[in-house]
Amino acid sequence: MEARERLLVAALDLFATYGVSGTSLQMIADRLGVTKAAVYHQFPSKDDIVLAVLSPALDRFGPIADHAESQRGNPARREAVLAGVVDLIVEFRRVSSTLSFDPVVIRLLRSHPSLRNLQRIRRLLGGTAPDPGSRVRMAVISAGLMMAGADPAVAGLDDEDFRDHLLAAARRILTG
Amino acid sequence: MEARERLLVAALDLFATYGVSGTSLQMIADRLGVTKAAVYHQFPSKDDIVLAVLSPALDRFGPIADHAESQRGNPARREAVLAGVVDLIVEFRRVSSTLSFDPVVIRLLRSHPSLRNLQRIRRLLGGTAPDPGSRVRMAVISAGLMMAGADPAVAGLDDEDFRDHLLAAARRILTG
Repeated sequence: MEARERLLVAALDLFATYGVSGTSLQMIADRLGVTKAAVYHQFPSKDDIVLAVLSPALDRFGPIADHAESQRGNPARREAVLAGVVDLIVEFRRVSSTLSFDPVVIRLLRSHPSLRNLQRIRRLLGGTAPDPGSRVRMAVISAGLMMAGADPAVAGLDDEDFRDHLLAAARRILTG
Repeated sequence: MEARERLLVAALDLFATYGVSGTSLQMIADRLGVTKAAVYHQFPSKDDIVLAVLSPALDRFGPIADHAESQRGNPARREAVLAGVVDLIVEFRRVSSTLSFDPVVIRLLRSHPSLRNLQRIRRLLGGTAPDPGSRVRMAVISAGLMMAGADPAVAGLDDEDFRDHLLAAARRILTG
């Protein structure tokens, strides 16, 4: 593994144990057995590390929305966006369940360009003017998909089973 | 509001912004305009504050499970436990969506007596030997219910609407 990749893995481990706010660059340096200066050399701030961990996932929001919007009809669009989101969550289950609701991450993403694509995804799933029932279903399924990977009861499932069952659960809740 | 209650509200505000790990007793004291010694006088450690915020909710797990187990037949038991859990989440929506997945809270609860009652609740909802599909549904609905309150799209809903729609969403996912 490259030094950059090793650093991001160590950071994610620490974020899972202490939260982003409770993790310092010094803790990341100690975990890697390097100096804090060596960490600074690669990432000038902790926010840069958080964004580097998140970016491969965030960069997928746009293509998922593009692909879904290219489908004909709302049911096909919703199905496409759901499949794309579930694939993304399975691939990044540890990142998603560790960082989705971290207060530092929520603050960082408030002004992040990917937010626009996340909103496109939400509109594709829930429509442009969802009623209260749809809003609650969207809130439940968003949080449920993002955090399901944190549940020890699903830790043993391989990616394919996890994806199939997540998709089935999401369909039940969204299409009744 | 009593001093103890004011302290717990200030602590929850800070936990929501910085996570438990990123919140110090000094920050809580500063928020209240008191000395750190005054905070120590009420709570000897941050863990004690976290548990004081959580306890009113955790103490309800046992009675919810007791009530459900007093029903006749698994469908009635599942319905009773679901209603109890949803009522609890609506009543404590801010506590639930702020603390459910905080790494410090997860660590604290690992050895907490309420864990046994949480496991009773999970068994009442998902059975004693759930297949992979049930385990994923349980993971999605647990996370979805606990964190739905964090979604800005449901912030405007009153408790009654929020409860009815949460219950409907949970039923869809659990009973298909």
